[in-house]
Amino acid sequence: MTKPYGAMSIAELSALIQTGTVDPVAVTEAVLAGIEAYPDKAVFISLLKDRALAEAEASSKRLKDGRSLGLLDGIPIAWKDLFDVEGLPTTAGSKVLKKAEPARKDAAIVDLLKQAGMVAVGRTNMSEFAFSGIGINPHYGTPRNPHGKDVPRIPGGSSSGSAVAVAAGLVPVAMGTDTGGSIRIPSALNGIVGYKATRGRHAMDGVYPLATSLDSLGPLCRTVQDAVWIDAAMRGLAAPQTARRSQEPLDIVIPTNIVFDGAEPGVVTAFEAAIGRLERAGARITRITIPAFDEIPALMAKRGALVTAEAFALHRQRLSGPEAAEMDHRVVARTRLGEKISMPDYIAILETKARLIAETEALIGDRFVAMPSVAHVAPPIEALEKDDELFFATNGKTLGNTALGNFLDWCGVSIPCGTGDADMPVGFLLSAGANHDEALLQAAMSCEETVRG
Amino acid sequence: MTKPYGAMSIAELSALIQTGTVDPVAVTEAVLAGIEAYPDKAVFISLLKDRALAEAEASSKRLKDGRSLGLLDGIPIAWKDLFDVEGLPTTAGSKVLKKAEPARKDAAIVDLLKQAGMVAVGRTNMSEFAFSGIGINPHYGTPRNPHGKDVPRIPGGSSSGSAVAVAAGLVPVAMGTDTGGSIRIPSALNGIVGYKATRGRHAMDGVYPLATSLDSLGPLCRTVQDAVWIDAAMRGLAAPQTARRSQEPLDIVIPTNIVFDGAEPGVVTAFEAAIGRLERAGARITRITIPAFDEIPALMAKRGALVTAEAFALHRQRLSGPEAAEMDHRVVARTRLGEKISMPDYIAILETKARLIAETEALIGDRFVAMPSVAHVAPPIEALEKDDELFFATNGKTLGNTALGNFLDWCGVSIPCGTGDADMPVGFLLSAGANHDEALLQAAMSCEETVRG
Repeated sequence: MTKPYGAMSIAELSALIQTGTVDPVAVTEAVLAGIEAYPDKAVFISLLKDRALAEAEASSKRLKDGRSLGLLDGIPIAWKDLFDVEGLPTTAGSKVLKKAEPARKDAAIVDLLKQAGMVAVGRTNMSEFAFSGIGINPHYGTPRNPHGKDVPRIPGGSSSGSAVAVAAGLVPVAMGTDTGGSIRIPSALNGIVGYKATRGRHAMDGVYPLATSLDSLGPLCRTVQDAVWIDAAMRGLAAPQTARRSQEPLDIVIPTNIVFDGAEPGVVTAFEAAIGRLERAGARITRITIPAFDEIPALMAKRGALVTAEAFALHRQRLSGPEAAEMDHRVVARTRLGEKISMPDYIAILETKARLIAETEALIGDRFVAMPSVAHVAPPIEALEKDDELFFATNGKTLGNTALGNFLDWCGVSIPCGTGDADMPVGFLLSAGANHDEALLQAAMSCEETVRG
Repeated sequence: MTKPYGAMSIAELSALIQTGTVDPVAVTEAVLAGIEAYPDKAVFISLLKDRALAEAEASSKRLKDGRSLGLLDGIPIAWKDLFDVEGLPTTAGSKVLKKAEPARKDAAIVDLLKQAGMVAVGRTNMSEFAFSGIGINPHYGTPRNPHGKDVPRIPGGSSSGSAVAVAAGLVPVAMGTDTGGSIRIPSALNGIVGYKATRGRHAMDGVYPLATSLDSLGPLCRTVQDAVWIDAAMRGLAAPQTARRSQEPLDIVIPTNIVFDGAEPGVVTAFEAAIGRLERAGARITRITIPAFDEIPALMAKRGALVTAEAFALHRQRLSGPEAAEMDHRVVARTRLGEKISMPDYIAILETKARLIAETEALIGDRFVAMPSVAHVAPPIEALEKDDELFFATNGKTLGNTALGNFLDWCGVSIPCGTGDADMPVGFLLSAGANHDEALLQAAMSCEETVRG
């Protein structure tokens, strides 16, 4: 074979499987072997060998019987370890949950993708409790960004293992969640595609929460087309309903405030080059100030962060007990900030959120918003591990652009758009308002080649 | 004329107006005169004479020109004094807002009903800040329940003036809001129809809030048909889309827990008589326990009430300043309870709310839920004014059944179903799950005559 199955797009691998060129069992065996042979042991927290082989055999039998479930039948997928898998504990990247009660059933979307014929091969590493954009994990190790050739560089988080598993060619797709950028950040830093759906588009049953006012999910994969297929299956559809291409020119807004503050020149150059290509291809580009982008950081400074409030509410028992000592001290420190947020402050944050969503919807309308997914490329791990102050400052920068979208309930797709410093990947983030997912995916499909350049 | 225009249903009055039998200006003049002649001065906080006459004249002109806007053209309506009316302060039943900034524009639904041709004749009294089910107001007086022939009895709240204005025959329809029962309670106690829409069905812009996780609105009127017309106009529709009658038998669930606790025998008798008539008319009646009904009071006892938390967040500046002394001390006391609700408690309440909504939806499905709107008839005013302990205990009972529906985001219609003690009206509450409004209104129309008996 020219390349490993795990390094293919879903579309490529599906063609091989559907034509009988390769059997799903052989694909799964090769993918499991590839993961085991991969030197970085921090990418997966656990493998699901027995389940994967049983699912692959069932897929193989269906295909031989002429009863293929469709394009995703027999395709391996890795799950961020906060999605419940029946019979096993869900760690959420934490040591304290290692011996948690085994899940009584699959998370709703784990089950939906199983029903589409997909093969769950393993559970990927993540920032503990999904609470950082960096991807460092002191309990299960920090997956290395496969693009970091000079020094070990961060994978980005919190869906660190999912991004590296795809970027390293171990699986064609892995699932993530995104509360402040946890899909789009690691996708951007590892040079792959990441789709964060509008919050509420997919069932969240059996997904370990971080902050329910912000939590959303979506696939990390190789192409926007692959993301469209996964999205459809997660909604219980037999096939996508997304239109392939628009006849209309893309109408793109670029914010002039906040999102370029302190951005690395290499990132800006790669992003602007993509914009130049889009413009030459006929896209309408408008540069405007988005006032909400100034209000959101000001609100956080005044009242606190929504994610911190909700994470504190979720973990407060744990933080006051012996488990706190077993947690990443950086996660403990950030979660404890939520204690200072009063109930009226929290309500004020939610009310401001609703107002800013309405105001931004009125400003942006049906247009798309483009910005660099992350204002920097993946930095080296070592300094961040040693220096908490640097860690918190970097984490704030890393989450800066993507978190604006979570606060506004936007959906977004990060598409690779070349490289910046140290030849590291840069992500191009295309976003749209809440529930504009179909239009966003269509736009992202139609501009993907141009953005990649 | 056989009866005053204000004592007619919208349908009756509309027939007179649309056929040219009576001119909208004459209707409005008669309605304004009726309000002014009515001895109880606590029903309205203010009249909108100039606006009403201008709107009636515009309606008259349209009708003469053959350009009627439809069934609601020229129909008078009274507005609870928490809906913004352009150019005037909105009191929300409070003295402290008497000199508030005049509203810059009409509330969204005030404008929508104006666009349907309706004539805003005045602003009705209410519990201060909509925060009680009793309807006592120390600032603008307590409207008397027109059915109380023996002693002055409460109107119910918080939409006290709206209910009395309709029940006393002053206007065919008045608008209310409902956070814990504020439409359904006064409708039931005054023997009229009240429709509380699902929260979010209608625009809330320009409506003074009480608790945004619970606030909803709807009309107090004479027939379910009238409510259907108003609902359609508030949604910007030219005519209702609600189907008139169902071919299917009504499928009704009666909760066996909570809602009959401490109910007056006269209320239970009137309610069960209506159920008997429905059963004989072919309705399917099932009596079941609804576990959420036990969990909701337990949750309130443990964490506090959602309405209190959100009202405290809204009024906390006011409560710590000199205005507190000008407020109803009962409203101040209840609002201050919110201070004890922590941010994590508040989040826990919202999470439980979401869970109970899902569980109840699974249990009830497309069926309707029937219960007495209020477990007692309207009690005398005097004792409640004198005894705060009695006031709080009674208020808790009054809100008991209806507030369950607010917590579960249900919609509901209260229909008169005979009388209880002291010959006072009893309300029959038919409810349905969130966003089942069309089915609910259809069911309520189809069973209204049978329920009334």
